[in-house]
Amino acid sequence: MTSSESRHIVSRRTRPAKSPLSQEAIVSTALDLLSREGMAGLSLRKVAAALDTGAASLYVYVANLDELHALLLDRVLGEIALPTTRDGDWRARLRTVLRSYSEVLYDRPGLAQVALSTIPSGPNMVELTESLLDLLQQGGVALDRAAWAVDLLLLHTSAFAAERDNRRRSDDVVALHRAQEALGSVSADKHPHIHALGAELFSGGQGRYDWALDVLINGVLSTPRP
Amino acid sequence: MTSSESRHIVSRRTRPAKSPLSQEAIVSTALDLLSREGMAGLSLRKVAAALDTGAASLYVYVANLDELHALLLDRVLGEIALPTTRDGDWRARLRTVLRSYSEVLYDRPGLAQVALSTIPSGPNMVELTESLLDLLQQGGVALDRAAWAVDLLLLHTSAFAAERDNRRRSDDVVALHRAQEALGSVSADKHPHIHALGAELFSGGQGRYDWALDVLINGVLSTPRP
Repeated sequence: MTSSESRHIVSRRTRPAKSPLSQEAIVSTALDLLSREGMAGLSLRKVAAALDTGAASLYVYVANLDELHALLLDRVLGEIALPTTRDGDWRARLRTVLRSYSEVLYDRPGLAQVALSTIPSGPNMVELTESLLDLLQQGGVALDRAAWAVDLLLLHTSAFAAERDNRRRSDDVVALHRAQEALGSVSADKHPHIHALGAELFSGGQGRYDWALDVLINGVLSTPRP
Repeated sequence: MTSSESRHIVSRRTRPAKSPLSQEAIVSTALDLLSREGMAGLSLRKVAAALDTGAASLYVYVANLDELHALLLDRVLGEIALPTTRDGDWRARLRTVLRSYSEVLYDRPGLAQVALSTIPSGPNMVELTESLLDLLQQGGVALDRAAWAVDLLLLHTSAFAAERDNRRRSDDVVALHRAQEALGSVSADKHPHIHALGAELFSGGQGRYDWALDVLINGVLSTPRP
């Protein structure tokens, strides 16, 4: 052994003790990796490496990547500030919760796509669901309709967050240009509505999201279950 | 050369001529691969191999996988039967178009997820957009509101198709069970709404999708743009 190699050898006694493995430690480490590297590269193998162990030791706590996704999602849902009062405008509070849900997803590139393909379960999902049901009840929505509405609102918010997330990719910007060109070059004869709208077809931004949320809320208020 | 090797050698003269490369041929081949193997494994390399050429020869016609996705999506949109009459119930016609869009996605596992992360552009997207704008106008929706509504309706339908698509995965069924257990074991004290709903939280199926579509349509009708 050369002296330069020996410098890297540390006795087990002087190394900091490994923190004990737990589902919580695994989720924390995964969240850390997610925030630094995005969703794309997240694997049980990488989480295990960051925890200084092998992937096989993780399976006691997390069955597979799918379960890790569900746990991660539940963990970040804990960051949503749920309403603590029933005073004032229920609709404003509902909007705030859903915007917060959207932000929590958008903050981690790739997570919104995961939310679209994962059924979360855990204590935070339970709290969020109860809170949304309560807000809809405050708005006079019958409980059975509210059950369907919660799903619809969360699905929609995830899809919108995923769309915003995609806009960060340069490929997506190119695709948007391509679509704008295709729709911008139609003739008034064959496609009168598209022609009349022009750039208006791509207007919006945050205003469009707020409008869509009101569309959903108004729709829920006026559409009884079959 | 052994005689068994020589049997596999076919003269260029007797081989069937390669069909000439074109964007259309590339998209047809990709669609064929997609129908047989699903979206997950679709790559420019595989498409090139199926066309008996190298990936480099494809780049003249398709810039990257993202553009291939957009072209694929536009191609399948051509299968949607758009209304040919303006007689009768515009709402029934709108529902039919959106259900058809959903089925066209659902028929190819993985394609709905692609629809959520791809901005399609091409002749069929133009036709679909014009048709949806026209249907909304027939329902009395102002053109600028209809522009936002088309986006919302397509986003929502893609998200719903993706959710149905996910249900085909066994991991997803396990996750659904996990969620049902989590929501089924809450106490009436702390989570009265969830407790009262019970299995009702997961009821629905196609009825739920039809209801959600009506929520969107009713919401669009009653929510002016800001």
